Amino acid sequence: MGQKTLLLTHNIETLGQMSCNPSIGGIGKGHLVKEVDALGGAMAAATDESGIQFRILNSSKGPAVRATRAQADRVLYRQAIRRRLENQQNLWLFQQAVDDLLVTGDRVDGVKTQLGLIFHARAVVLTAGTFLAGLVHVGQSNYQAGRAGDPPAISLAHRLRELKLPVGRLKTGTPPRLDGRSLDYSVMEIQPGDDPAPVFSFLGNASQHPHQLPCWITHTSEETHEIIRNGLDRSPLYTGVIAGVGPRYCPSIEDKVVRFAEKLSHQIFVEPEGLTTHEVYPNGISTSLPFDVQMALVRSIKGFEKAHVTRPGYAIEYDYFDPTGLKSSLETRAIQGLFFAGQINGTTGYEEAAAQGLLAGINAGLYVQERTAWCPQRNEAYLGVLVDDLITRGVTEPYRMFTSRAEYRLSLREDNADLRLTEAGRRLGVVDDLRWDAFMRKRDAIEAELARLRSVWVRPETLAEADALRVLGKPIEHEYSLYELLRRPDVDYAGILSLSDTSAVTNDPQVIEQVEIQAKYQGYIERQHDEIERGRALEGRPLPPDLDYSTVHGLSVEAQQKLNRHKPETIGHASRISGITPAAVSVLLVHLKRTGASIKHKNYA
Amino acid sequence: MGQKTLLLTHNIETLGQMSCNPSIGGIGKGHLVKEVDALGGAMAAATDESGIQFRILNSSKGPAVRATRAQADRVLYRQAIRRRLENQQNLWLFQQAVDDLLVTGDRVDGVKTQLGLIFHARAVVLTAGTFLAGLVHVGQSNYQAGRAGDPPAISLAHRLRELKLPVGRLKTGTPPRLDGRSLDYSVMEIQPGDDPAPVFSFLGNASQHPHQLPCWITHTSEETHEIIRNGLDRSPLYTGVIAGVGPRYCPSIEDKVVRFAEKLSHQIFVEPEGLTTHEVYPNGISTSLPFDVQMALVRSIKGFEKAHVTRPGYAIEYDYFDPTGLKSSLETRAIQGLFFAGQINGTTGYEEAAAQGLLAGINAGLYVQERTAWCPQRNEAYLGVLVDDLITRGVTEPYRMFTSRAEYRLSLREDNADLRLTEAGRRLGVVDDLRWDAFMRKRDAIEAELARLRSVWVRPETLAEADALRVLGKPIEHEYSLYELLRRPDVDYAGILSLSDTSAVTNDPQVIEQVEIQAKYQGYIERQHDEIERGRALEGRPLPPDLDYSTVHGLSVEAQQKLNRHKPETIGHASRISGITPAAVSVLLVHLKRTGASIKHKNYA
Ligand SMILES: Cc1cc2nc3c(=O)[nH]c(=O)nc-3n(C[C@H](O)[C@H](O)[C@H](O)COP(=O)(O)OP(=O)(O)OC[C@H]3O[C@@H](n4cnc5c(N)ncnc54)[C@H](O)[C@@H]3O)c2cc1C
Ligand SMILES: Cc1cc2nc3c(=O)[nH]c(=O)nc-3n(C[C@H](O)[C@H](O)[C@H](O)COP(=O)(O)OP(=O)(O)OC[C@H]3O[C@@H](n4cnc5c(N)ncnc54)[C@H](O)[C@@H]3O)c2cc1C
Repeated sequence: MGQKTLLLTHNIETLGQMSCNPSIGGIGKGHLVKEVDALGGAMAAATDESGIQFRILNSSKGPAVRATRAQADRVLYRQAIRRRLENQQNLWLFQQAVDDLLVTGDRVDGVKTQLGLIFHARAVVLTAGTFLAGLVHVGQSNYQAGRAGDPPAISLAHRLRELKLPVGRLKTGTPPRLDGRSLDYSVMEIQPGDDPAPVFSFLGNASQHPHQLPCWITHTSEETHEIIRNGLDRSPLYTGVIAGVGPRYCPSIEDKVVRFAEKLSHQIFVEPEGLTTHEVYPNGISTSLPFDVQMALVRSIKGFEKAHVTRPGYAIEYDYFDPTGLKSSLETRAIQGLFFAGQINGTTGYEEAAAQGLLAGINAGLYVQERTAWCPQRNEAYLGVLVDDLITRGVTEPYRMFTSRAEYRLSLREDNADLRLTEAGRRLGVVDDLRWDAFMRKRDAIEAELARLRSVWVRPETLAEADALRVLGKPIEHEYSLYELLRRPDVDYAGILSLSDTSAVTNDPQVIEQVEIQAKYQGYIERQHDEIERGRALEGRPLPPDLDYSTVHGLSVEAQQKLNRHKPETIGHASRISGITPAAVSVLLVHLKRTGASIKHKNYA
Repeated sequence: MGQKTLLLTHNIETLGQMSCNPSIGGIGKGHLVKEVDALGGAMAAATDESGIQFRILNSSKGPAVRATRAQADRVLYRQAIRRRLENQQNLWLFQQAVDDLLVTGDRVDGVKTQLGLIFHARAVVLTAGTFLAGLVHVGQSNYQAGRAGDPPAISLAHRLRELKLPVGRLKTGTPPRLDGRSLDYSVMEIQPGDDPAPVFSFLGNASQHPHQLPCWITHTSEETHEIIRNGLDRSPLYTGVIAGVGPRYCPSIEDKVVRFAEKLSHQIFVEPEGLTTHEVYPNGISTSLPFDVQMALVRSIKGFEKAHVTRPGYAIEYDYFDPTGLKSSLETRAIQGLFFAGQINGTTGYEEAAAQGLLAGINAGLYVQERTAWCPQRNEAYLGVLVDDLITRGVTEPYRMFTSRAEYRLSLREDNADLRLTEAGRRLGVVDDLRWDAFMRKRDAIEAELARLRSVWVRPETLAEADALRVLGKPIEHEYSLYELLRRPDVDYAGILSLSDTSAVTNDPQVIEQVEIQAKYQGYIERQHDEIERGRALEGRPLPPDLDYSTVHGLSVEAQQKLNRHKPETIGHASRISGITPAAVSVLLVHLKRTGASIKHKNYA
């Protein structure tokens, strides 16, 4: 976008540091990674360079819920990110903690660092992660830190509280790390990566991957659960020491044992941390129990009997800001030019953070250029779902992405993230020529191949019966286009190709995948499209930001209060605020029509 | 040595992190690196794997002051160290800050971590670097940190003060880092590495080196000095904010400008920080001036006019412990089993720290095994010089190694560090089979080749005149052994070889180097050896640790007090305590003889 940007960080060495498990993607999260990639972000490409195990999850299910997941080598990932940051045009790095925001009236004016240095800026994006007033807990002990080994951001947290931004506390946790050499893999189940290895970035290829490693699977035992139950009286979670709420979908092992008391065993994925380290990450036993309990519980697990723990598990509590205080551009409503992205908005996960960071960055750029914000909708991107969920519903626990959060998930697939977003990215100025050329070639090849399949006809008289049986399972009774045949269940593209002797436009697997999916799911996708179109009229209807809902007749007092608190940007937002009924939405529509108060729905330049 | 060892650290990711300039070795320091290598330490080998520029300093001078120096790639160095630590037998890593020492009576009993975990141990080696009550200064601003970006060790510092260990404050500093892309190298002088590239480890070879890069040289200008002088009123050094004393031989640029007011310009080495980063280290402008002054001074330097600073320069003040409170094993006198090594003892530099760490580690192992401590003498190793200087003289400023500190520097060369120390290391149990085999092969080859050179005679009648002129510059008048001829100035080994047709024992350049040096410097070395022998009798005479010097007649009150404070371990130590005159030493010798109080001089098992 050409905007001069300064990146301020506590420590340049920790840029790209993964706080918790060394893995990128997964269901819902993988979708975000592909969207970030489609918009020119670094995450997918960095993962292709650093991933030591790649898998497609749900590969036997429909394309909507298929998702890519990779284990990353922590060191290689950090390097891949650092290299990109250092080489990013118009980006300057500077190592200094931010202690204060400069605010003039209701506008941000820059930041002040730990050393009192002042940097003026028209827009500021704050991505402080778990560092704001971070407090690490293990058992009844706790101490201030940004994460284990890093200093916390105390002064900035104080200042943000002074600015009266709506603050709360959340918590997250991480398991102890183990020395792989002290584990007995022979009693675990091996989980190799997919072969051939999938690729994350639309521009990536498998030859970029370093050496691949398997993961391993083991299980907690009843003894493990007994040890945990006996430790609960010294758990900071169960004795009320931790006030912050933790992520429901990444619960600690003590949470799992308490909440699912009937389960006799929980699965643990033993994930390598990298090619050059023996440390492994036992995914599934995040805990803040006292260290002696951690040791005992670890050693009660099959294959971990002699485990050496290299780092204790811990929980961290930190300040987050109520995201209902944000616009859908991720700008704070309270302070113009100030954007929040990542864990600070109550989410959890690298992918959620990356997606928000990208969006906030784009919108900070647009803000400075005095262009309208770009706010992808729920039907365009998981990014839209994420932001809309955050700003209309807020969070009561760390928010993570799932495919089930998306109404239009048939359209929001991993495979078409580029087709959904790269054009927008190009207009915004975040998609470079390389990506744009590759994208156009792919888009055009898909169009051309679909057109070809639609125009090549197969006739009963020319189709050999053997071929018909092999590919279609039965003879055809009248002529069909290749496209129509491809739409049949159990018929695949390779088979279709073999039915005609005109050659395909491409052998690019990305193109073939699109052609196949678009043909097979056309019906569903079109139906969803209609739904989206119907919804869009309402969805996008803007509400005036200064509307005082207590003056809107026909709304319940509760609805008036909620709407005044949230100040939704559109009818769509309003409809998703909890407690806003379809009846209240109708009242709003009537009100808009009567007062003509609606502002024009602007689009970005 | 087979001792089970636990390494506790704030942050496993920062193991092997270079706090300041990415360079290893140099005059005096290179000697320490080779000694560490000769004893099985990691520093030289890690540098061979990560060095991006290698040079021999003083290559035109005598072998005693020749020294190896390398620029390291920071990331590769950290990885090389981490890999070695992870793969070290009997070593366990654990990520936890140490907050407290457990002491029972006058014996250390273990440590307590930030989370209250207790680890019992019979010996503890403390290597807290600049972290103890670390305070970072830039201009009049300061904040607590272990170094920029890392948390300080506050609790441990409090506890050590409570234990009444003799504590003081020192300071050190570092320059701002620059983005190499913002520099104009065309106006600087290039400084390539040596070709062929030297090697650091006795077991290393140049093929281990990654891609090599040049350094660059530029200079401060009068304008730079003016800017600095105008900033002094806001310098924490010159306004008394910093109490700690800084290293005289790595002064800040403001120090240099003030102390050498007559110099119009100072040299700056522009050193790459690595292969994968654009950051560069401007060696020579360490500073804690306010950041605006830093910016101005940087930009007043030729080639830096448009420099982007990525990290500010700063000074750090930290607690150190008076090393006169240590035994020559680096065990504290006050607390049995507690060893101190590195910056905590008042030294500065990676090499000084590595040497002490190795020695303290060996002696902690010997202590636990109830074997006598190993204390190399001043005539055996720079390591001996270092420790002896520290414990007998203490420090008033951060101590760094120089060849001028060694009386016996003709014997203490880089090239013979293995011949001086590897046998001792083998007996101690720190030299592995690989190193030992290579060492024995080398040692035997040197012996064999020296013997051969001594036994092959060249006679006037058989030496062609042309050969004599070419190699020796003149004919020989009677018969000489090859060895005798090699001792002549201007005659080199290759020339000598060409005079006889018996073939050499070896073509190993390390062996040839030794043969040449031992032959050429034999006279000097023997003289030094005699001196050492004469000194040794006195040097090693032990003094009883419980001797009350106020009862020794003939000593001045001052000498009595000093000796009682220092409790020197040997006559040699006593003689080097400032204010102890040769007369006082004689009194001590008489006293020893009279009382028979001398304890036997023990040697390690
Ligand atoms: C213990 C722990 C467990 C976790 N467990 C999970 C999990 O199970 N599943 C999951 O999906 N995610 C988990 N995460 C979350 C994941 O790490 C985060 O969601 C993600 O890293 C958030 O990214 P971010 O960019 O918002 O912040 P972070 O990755 O935390 O980065 C914040 C950055 O801001 C810098 N910074 C902070 N304050 C300042 C300041 N004042 N001045 C300058 N720089 C500053 C920091 O140095 C850091 O570089 C866990 C995190 C932690 C710490
Ligand atoms: C700003 C700066 C400038 C410097 N400039 C120079 C220079 O110009 N020339 C030069 O030769 N040298 C310089 N140095 C010095 C050089 O970095 C040190 O001498 C060397 O690193 C000391 O090594 P060390 O092992 O003693 O300590 P460090 O390298 O400081 O390592 C200490 C380690 O101990 C850990 N630690 C500390 N406290 C605890 C605790 N309580 N619990 C657990 N772990 C703990 C830390 O995490 C760290 O890993 C500089 C250092 C700094 C910080």
